[in-house]
Amino acid sequence: MRLAELSERSGVSTATIKYYLREGLLAPGRQINTTTAEYDDEHLRRLKLIRAMIQVGRVPVATVREVLGHVDDDSLPRTIRLGAAVWALPQVPEPDADDEFVQGARVAMEGVLESLGWTHAQSMTTISPSFRSLVVAAAALRRLGYDWSPEVLVPYARLMHQVAELDMDFMETHTSEAEKIEVAILGAVLVEPMLQALHRLAQEEESTRRYGYE
Amino acid sequence: MRLAELSERSGVSTATIKYYLREGLLAPGRQINTTTAEYDDEHLRRLKLIRAMIQVGRVPVATVREVLGHVDDDSLPRTIRLGAAVWALPQVPEPDADDEFVQGARVAMEGVLESLGWTHAQSMTTISPSFRSLVVAAAALRRLGYDWSPEVLVPYARLMHQVAELDMDFMETHTSEAEKIEVAILGAVLVEPMLQALHRLAQEEESTRRYGYE
Repeated sequence: MRLAELSERSGVSTATIKYYLREGLLAPGRQINTTTAEYDDEHLRRLKLIRAMIQVGRVPVATVREVLGHVDDDSLPRTIRLGAAVWALPQVPEPDADDEFVQGARVAMEGVLESLGWTHAQSMTTISPSFRSLVVAAAALRRLGYDWSPEVLVPYARLMHQVAELDMDFMETHTSEAEKIEVAILGAVLVEPMLQALHRLAQEEESTRRYGYE
Repeated sequence: MRLAELSERSGVSTATIKYYLREGLLAPGRQINTTTAEYDDEHLRRLKLIRAMIQVGRVPVATVREVLGHVDDDSLPRTIRLGAAVWALPQVPEPDADDEFVQGARVAMEGVLESLGWTHAQSMTTISPSFRSLVVAAAALRRLGYDWSPEVLVPYARLMHQVAELDMDFMETHTSEAEKIEVAILGAVLVEPMLQALHRLAQEEESTRRYGYE
């Protein structure tokens, strides 16, 4: 398809597509002559992903380029490629390592992974931004003076593991390796807000079931 | 305890406590003489909650006042009080009702609640900000051109219902009615980021288990 059709089918203006081409977010089309290039379904799919990150996820252009670099790097094994792509998305900043609450939370959260038997996650605690997010949130609760046992997280984590199994099952229904990684990015950008909404809806449902309106 | 001790034990400066008192976020202490007031553990607990919302959740002061108004309103039954307090937190704005993607997503999400048998949630779709969030996220996926069956959400929702059961069980371990509502607010502000971190960690664990590093 030509640029005009790519624009129409993706809902992205030709000016924006040209900008993405210049910025290297989108691979150049097949040049037919000096002024015309031909694009295919892969361009269309990639454009949707770029729009999801930029327009919905508010991911900066430089970060999108980095994420897509990992999506396209087929020299990496799948786990690393998946991790690198998701980890390249905006994450919570590194907390102050000297902060006593952060140190305490880190030890407590390592204990939770140990209780769960998540041996792979345990080996990634120093580099995983997901582990960092968990530590930052746990430290915030302690700093506010809430005294809670880290073990309360264990049943929550087991349910989130079942959620992750659904994620992977869904990812595996896609054929190409690049599409699989793209689904993981979309999950992080678009599906997590849906999961949070389902969580709150479930609370409303459960509260009404338990306590009614009286 | 006096103001100085309340400040020390809560980690909130006396100037900030005085500001919260003026703004009506914190109930006045028991006046001992014209210049001194006495505060108790309830003031301390309330201060922690206010800090959680303002400092960690970045909730505006006017919103905090509204949330606390619902927490303290013991004329309401528990479900309504819980809902009102959580719903008063910042939420996604109302989407454009004329937008075809929003209309389609609303019908699709109502179908998901039907499949789940969440009859209470079904009766609240016009007012629940959680349902609105779900519709907005679902509409975003469609608008980006992703064609997906709403039914894929059903197993996710069932797991989130189990998460909500854990939430309510934990809430019920607290004695007073006001504390129960406070726990629900804390959950929305502080625990949801932890749940999201656990979800991503579980994905990392599951990906490594399934695909290793090769």
